[in-house]
Parts: sequence; C-alpha cells; structure tokens
Amino acid sequence: MDLVIGIDIGGTKTKIGLVDKEGNCLIKSNFRTREYPDLDAFLDKVKSEVDVLVGSLNLAPNILGCGIGAPNASSKRGTIENAANLLWKGTVPLLEKLKEKMPMPMRIMNDASAAALGEMLFGNGRNMTDFIVVTLGTGFGAGIVANGQLIDGYDGFAGELGHIDMTIGDGRLTGLGVPGGLEAYVSATGLKRTIMFMLSKYLDDSRFRDVSYNQLHGEDITKAAEEGDPIALKAFDFTARVMAQALANFTAFTQPEAFILMGGLTQSGKWLTDPLEKYFEEFLLDVYKGKVKIMRSGMRGKTAAICGAAALIWESHR
Amino acid sequence: MDLVIGIDIGGTKTKIGLVDKEGNCLIKSNFRTREYPDLDAFLDKVKSEVDVLVGSLNLAPNILGCGIGAPNASSKRGTIENAANLLWKGTVPLLEKLKEKMPMPMRIMNDASAAALGEMLFGNGRNMTDFIVVTLGTGFGAGIVANGQLIDGYDGFAGELGHIDMTIGDGRLTGLGVPGGLEAYVSATGLKRTIMFMLSKYLDDSRFRDVSYNQLHGEDITKAAEEGDPIALKAFDFTARVMAQALANFTAFTQPEAFILMGGLTQSGKWLTDPLEKYFEEFLLDVYKGKVKIMRSGMRGKTAAICGAAALIWESHR
Repeated sequence: MDLVIGIDIGGTKTKIGLVDKEGNCLIKSNFRTREYPDLDAFLDKVKSEVDVLVGSLNLAPNILGCGIGAPNASSKRGTIENAANLLWKGTVPLLEKLKEKMPMPMRIMNDASAAALGEMLFGNGRNMTDFIVVTLGTGFGAGIVANGQLIDGYDGFAGELGHIDMTIGDGRLTGLGVPGGLEAYVSATGLKRTIMFMLSKYLDDSRFRDVSYNQLHGEDITKAAEEGDPIALKAFDFTARVMAQALANFTAFTQPEAFILMGGLTQSGKWLTDPLEKYFEEFLLDVYKGKVKIMRSGMRGKTAAICGAAALIWESHR
Repeated sequence: MDLVIGIDIGGTKTKIGLVDKEGNCLIKSNFRTREYPDLDAFLDKVKSEVDVLVGSLNLAPNILGCGIGAPNASSKRGTIENAANLLWKGTVPLLEKLKEKMPMPMRIMNDASAAALGEMLFGNGRNMTDFIVVTLGTGFGAGIVANGQLIDGYDGFAGELGHIDMTIGDGRLTGLGVPGGLEAYVSATGLKRTIMFMLSKYLDDSRFRDVSYNQLHGEDITKAAEEGDPIALKAFDFTARVMAQALANFTAFTQPEAFILMGGLTQSGKWLTDPLEKYFEEFLLDVYKGKVKIMRSGMRGKTAAICGAAALIWESHR
C-alpha cells in the first residue's frame, strides 16, 4: 500500500502521520516541539516516531516520501527562516538535515501553503482552481491557489499575509513588530487582545472583568457570546470587520472563488462568520459582489495539518 | 510574415498596431474612444483602422489573431464590465461583437494584465517567473505573474488593486467610491489630489498657490520638484510612502522578484522612485528585505500597451 509521511511542525506540537492517497490519516502521533531545542535531537525524535508508526501498521507500506509543513518554511530552499514560534533561530536547513537521516523524496512548505495543497487534493478545494486558505490560530496564515497551482513566490515565501499593514487606529504590533499588522487583530491572539481593548473602551458589565489576559481562552469568548456578553459580542464584531476588510482586499489580488477557513478561531462558528459574511459583502468591490464564498475546511480538524503536509508528496503522484 | 493585431482601448484613446513576434510594433494608429459612444460604430471604426493598417504594409502579412487590452475587461467572459472611464455602460460583450466583424482568434484582458503579459514576452519580465506590473496612469492597475503564469482570477478580474482600502487618515474616495482606496493616492490623479492636500496642510510658498486643480499637470509637478518647490517635494514623498506600503503588502501576497512600473506617473523619475525605494525597504518584512526589485518597464512607452495586447495572442505561438 502506497503511503506518504506527513509532518506538521508547530510552535507547540509536532504531529506525524501516515496518509493514503485519499487523504486518510491511517495512524498518527505527536510530541512537544519545545522539548527538542537541539535540531539534531529533534530530527532523531522525528525519525524514531516515523519508525514506530511504520512498524505498527499491519501491512508493509510503500513509503513514497515525506511532506513537511512548518512556519516560515521556504519551499524553494528547504529551510525554516527566523520562525518566531520555534526555538531554532536563524536559517535552519531542515530538509537537507532530515534527508540525511531518512533518505527519501522530501518537500517542505509554509504550513498554510501545505494546508492549501491539502484542500486542493483532499478537501473543499478539489473542484476549484482559485481559492485561498486562511489559517486562524495563534497567528494568521494564508495559502494561495491560483490557476490551479499553489503560489510559492520567487523565494518560497508567498502568503505571509499575517503581517500586512492594516493601519488601523492604534496600530497594534504583531509578533514581528509590524504596527497595525493583520494578525494582531485577526487570530486567536488578536481576539484576546480585542477583548482587552473593548474592556478599555466600554463600561459594559462582562464576565471578562474578572479574567486576566493570560487566563483568557478562546472557548470562553465563544461561550460568553452565546450568553450575550456585550464585550464578547463587540470583540467578535470588530474582529470580523477587520477580517472582512482584509479578505475583500485579498479578493482584488487573485480573485478567488472561495476563502477556506481553518484553525482554532474558526471554532467560534457563527459568532465570527455571521458578521464576517455581512461585512465582507459590504467591503467587496461591485465587480466581485456575490461571487466569493467563505467556507470552512473540508478536512477533518485533527489531521488536517498532517494531510496537508502529505499532500506535498501526493501532488506529484496523481 | 506572421503578425498579431494589438488593440488598447483606453478612456481617452484607442490604439491599434501590428506586432511581430519580437514585440516590435511595425505600424500603428489611434483615434478618440469617446467619439464612438455607440458600440457598433466603435467596432466598425476598429475594423476600418485595422484594414487600413494591414493594407499599408509592403508585404502580405499572415494575421494570427487579435489581442485587446481594456479597463475592467474579463478575460474569462470576453466582456468589459462597468468601466468607469468608458461610455458603454453595464456589461459589454466586446469580444463576441468584434469577432462577428473580424472573424479570427481573439482574446481580451484587463489592460494591466495585458501589460504584464507584454513584459513577460517582450520586456523586463522575460527571465522572471514572479513579478507584478504596476500601471500608474489616471488610475492604479496591476498585472500579476506568479509561477510563470498570469493570474487571471476565478472570474477574470484579478489585480484590481487600485481600489484596495488603505484606510489612511482622511480616506479619499476613488472613482468607484471606495474610501481610502489606493488609487486615490497613488496615480497621476492621486498626485494632483495630494498637491491640493499639501496646500491645505502647509503654508510653504509654492508655484501651485496660483494654479487651479484643473490646470494642474503631472509634468509641472515634476518640474516644480526639480526647482525645489516644497509642496511638490512633500507630495512626491507622501505618494511614494503610500505606494511603498502598498507594494510591501503586495509582496507578502505572491512574493514577486520585481515590481515593474509603467504609465504617466513614472515619468516623474527619481522624484517618485528615490523615496519609493527608501520607504519600500523600510516597510518590507525582514524575510523579503533586499530581495524585491523595483524597475521601469522594458518596453517602449508609446507602443507598450499595443504590444501588451498583442502578447495575448503571441503567448500561444511560442
């Protein structure tokens, strides 16, 4: 049976799985990325996890290769460069080093771009030639498909939209120090920051008057909105408005048929998407109105990142 | 000799020429677009101009087809839709109608996208797979090439970047009523508006204190900058700064190797490009710094639009 190894390297966890050609993840495991500050030790851990996964299958798989999704990865150079949420600093030649330990066809890509490739092969992008995947987690990521191809960029760093300048009023800084950057507003972290801002701006009573920033969790904000908490509702409305403006601007770029949303913040469901869809249609130029869909990922949440990474290899086998 | 008809339909002039496979425009003519408010009469005029051009050549050309560049053109539907600067309103099925009069292979495209195809085949884009052409005329247009292909969009309307929302302070309206839209700042018209703004903001002496908005011409602003006029210098600096911010944001989208500038505003030369390059490097994310060039068009100014249109047909003959 032909299988591909999919690896998603995240700031918190590294997830590994074996994925078949339909995008099913047959078996998976994960470990904490930060327990391996030494790159060589990390790669040894990856290899041993892969060996365990392959060995535990009740069949002799034919491994076609290994796809890797990671933040700040350059597909063209096989590197991870200056990733804010990883411990390895500077330019990390990850592909070259891992190939030494596991010689096989291997590709690495920005995690959001890998997610876009996953949607293209296995998810809601299957019948679309032009779409944009937006990942709303700790940060804001984007994977762009146009003309039926993933847009890589000259140097493999296309789609770094979390740091584009939205120049909104007070101009919050992103993790890279960009004032007014998009992900300072539109991400799980951005929503938390907006709760703080709304507590500063309004005097409404709110359950969040008794909660510290560090205690604040995304699920609690959704729950508060369900209970009609005015601060939570204002925060979702504001987040949706900024996001709608950004997506309307992105539409003018490649004119996608759809935006496909994934990541933790999308679990807020209608509290985000209802105002988002309203504002989005308002912001769109007339020529685009009614033509651009906003949809949720078509991939199962827990293995989407693994399957996206595996898609890097499956792409050339179909 | 194989030749292609290139037609550039502009708000002011319609230009027609015959273009060889090297991108040389052998012969050309033009007429005023607005003298033909009736579409049918316009198309008859186009056909008669083409017949005159073909007849005046000292050889029997083999016409491969006809490429057309026009504002608000949808490549996928062959239409011009709601073009602010043309007299034909609503959705104009231009390709279908012109084909009835001149049966031959024919394509139409947004003028800035046609310009990008022209640069790809004949100009400075010849050795690049990822670049963006920016046209700075009455408005702001963009043609995007990524992965060696022109980005068309789901519906043929990619690259309408003149109306993305820059949300700057006072939020000038574009011709489509978008507040804070890019081309309200960065275009020949935008520069004129900025002169007015600087006259309102500062009390510096300036030659423009005696000039009305309607009397104000782009060349005069360049001349004033050369003479050290403080209002002109402030206006160029402001325009360059807004443009730099926009180009830095665009870089995060497709990560082009270069931006290629063309159009009337580029004739301001260093008064625009010197501050533009300075601010652009400042605004770029670290991961892009030093990697993105800003260059002038590689095509001869007067026939660039015609050759860009002809590139729509030449593209499939190479």
